[in-house]
Amino acid sequence: MVFGKPKMAVFAHMDTVGFMVRYNDQMVPVGSPEINDKTILTGRDNLGMIECGLRIDENFRVYHTFMRGIQRGTLLSYKPDFHKKGKWLYSPYLDNRMGIWNALMLAHTMKNGIIFFSTGEEQGGGSVSFLTRLMYEKYHVTKALISDVTWITDGILPGNGVVISMKDRYIPSQKFVSSIIETAEKNNIRFQLEVEDNGSSDGGEIQRSPYPVDWCFVGVPCKNIHSPMESMNLDDLTEMNRLYKILLN
Amino acid sequence: MVFGKPKMAVFAHMDTVGFMVRYNDQMVPVGSPEINDKTILTGRDNLGMIECGLRIDENFRVYHTFMRGIQRGTLLSYKPDFHKKGKWLYSPYLDNRMGIWNALMLAHTMKNGIIFFSTGEEQGGGSVSFLTRLMYEKYHVTKALISDVTWITDGILPGNGVVISMKDRYIPSQKFVSSIIETAEKNNIRFQLEVEDNGSSDGGEIQRSPYPVDWCFVGVPCKNIHSPMESMNLDDLTEMNRLYKILLN
Amino acid sequence: MVFGKPKMAVFAHMDTVGFMVRYNDQMVPVGSPEINDKTILTGRDNLGMIECGLRIDENFRVYHTFMRGIQRGTLLSYKPDFHKKGKWLYSPYLDNRMGIWNALMLAHTMKNGIIFFSTGEEQGGGSVSFLTRLMYEKYHVTKALISDVTWITDGILPGNGVVISMKDRYIPSQKFVSSIIETAEKNNIRFQLEVEDNGSSDGGEIQRSPYPVDWCFVGVPCKNIHSPMESMNLDDLTEMNRLYKILLN
Repeated sequence: MVFGKPKMAVFAHMDTVGFMVRYNDQMVPVGSPEINDKTILTGRDNLGMIECGLRIDENFRVYHTFMRGIQRGTLLSYKPDFHKKGKWLYSPYLDNRMGIWNALMLAHTMKNGIIFFSTGEEQGGGSVSFLTRLMYEKYHVTKALISDVTWITDGILPGNGVVISMKDRYIPSQKFVSSIIETAEKNNIRFQLEVEDNGSSDGGEIQRSPYPVDWCFVGVPCKNIHSPMESMNLDDLTEMNRLYKILLN
Repeated sequence: MVFGKPKMAVFAHMDTVGFMVRYNDQMVPVGSPEINDKTILTGRDNLGMIECGLRIDENFRVYHTFMRGIQRGTLLSYKPDFHKKGKWLYSPYLDNRMGIWNALMLAHTMKNGIIFFSTGEEQGGGSVSFLTRLMYEKYHVTKALISDVTWITDGILPGNGVVISMKDRYIPSQKFVSSIIETAEKNNIRFQLEVEDNGSSDGGEIQRSPYPVDWCFVGVPCKNIHSPMESMNLDDLTEMNRLYKILLN
Repeated sequence: MVFGKPKMAVFAHMDTVGFMVRYNDQMVPVGSPEINDKTILTGRDNLGMIECGLRIDENFRVYHTFMRGIQRGTLLSYKPDFHKKGKWLYSPYLDNRMGIWNALMLAHTMKNGIIFFSTGEEQGGGSVSFLTRLMYEKYHVTKALISDVTWITDGILPGNGVVISMKDRYIPSQKFVSSIIETAEKNNIRFQLEVEDNGSSDGGEIQRSPYPVDWCFVGVPCKNIHSPMESMNLDDLTEMNRLYKILLN
């Protein structure tokens, strides 16, 4: 979605972790799902709807427990279970529904900017490098924000505000990150700075692309990422959306 | 090779696994060769032809056993030994001679299409990303088939037909894969669907490239891949070539 | 820096290994620094200059020992300590000051050629792929030399001359490498050929890019790479610079 004369782009990946059915009731992970033996999966193949549990063997292979075989290549994902408790939101796939929600909220009032919804980022990537080419070659936009969730660590805590990341496996442009921090300070937005050794967002794919695009992860901390029951603090989400609205205008 | 007004491209890598001579008779692998202490290697340096065995030490370093030193940087590959036995073909480097054979057979009758022979894919890649740029920017072609061999697993068996891959380390476009499956069904071609957790074909490099090109691996199962004696079933090859001929027309 | 009608480009990365301050006095590595508990680091945050030691805990986490906290995201690097002893040069960050020195010396007399100074290559890369696009699309240059340092091994020794690399994790074009070797031979330049299984230079990023650019690492052996006290032989550097001057003319 392109609005007016864009100067900045927002990336939110739409794909989710889960499983693809292999042979003999085995399933292979799509992305890196965090499961236990109570996880419930749903999906659909040519024979109809599927809802089933799973079983993990001693070699960490995962099998579905559906009463019939499931066609090869069928995708299964966590059964939805969305609820709120005080300031906490619980659901599978807050990663990256919250990043998408943030982008859609922006769209209501955005005058200039690009919003990209990508697929494929949980499994090897590829869409983001194509979108980076598009934003640079077609729209001459050289700044990107990654609207996504991040891990809770000893320095990143739920309730402490929007997360601005200074380093994960990649290091974003210090100039661009500083300008975002300054904007947050000026506007009294609660934020926390992330510095990590590992992990990577869609920004890594922008970094590796042959286009000179600055990027920065700006998101929220999320508990139990990639599990069937992720959770996050609503105040962080409010701060995140406030910051995006200012940055995109 | 470009024919007529291409709508689809075929990728077949030409390079092979093997060794490059290092220092003190040591050799480093090119790609991931599967060897034992009876493997025979051949090559040539400035001093002449080479045919030799190899020796593996306790740290899994590999040394050649040629009677003289071999110049640094000399490439050695498996000694050819091609034979047929019933429906089975035996030879080193069926990976990817069979992919190339399939592409050359196509060329006889192809009216519209591109065939790419790439080098470098066994060792880090790089050619395919360049060819993807070429096919997209110069020929506006956005569909690619990977003509190559794949591993035998508990779901992929020699003699069961051409392999259409739904997932390896990367996931191809479901729409494109479905259209290939449909074509195979309509034309009574024997096929088997592959769903794996690991492994990657040249399609992975297309996926990571900044160009929106759909890809799918369509190939044959091969025994003892990367060893001096790979083998495959000729019926699978026939089915593979039949499917390619229909898809490219 | 672009001179005349360039036919070849020289890449020298400018960034260094070091640390970024995380939370609770912890630091995360930038690149892969090789440290011990006597390493001294320097840097600066909003509160002033920093010079401090470090401490490594039983989980190989690294902490600074500065008397006060340091702001999140602050970068620390090795304290400079440059000295010469006979034919040996000692200093942190010879990787890649020597590659840069070589490129700057070239610039004095260069008539046709491009020199690229990149940042980001110690931490995930990304600049080189952009520069490869630039050199190919804007300047139509398809040959690149990587001006950098390499490891000492059982085949690569300091004092044995400039290193021309035939293989690391990637394999450069044999035709291009052969032409460089020939040039070195014709001009009586002392050189040694490198063949390694692992490791990668900026050439790897050129290889993976979607542009058909030949590359070759041409550099010097360096002791204790990424430590606070790297060292190298000045004669190797002289030979390296002589070879570059001939290749670029």
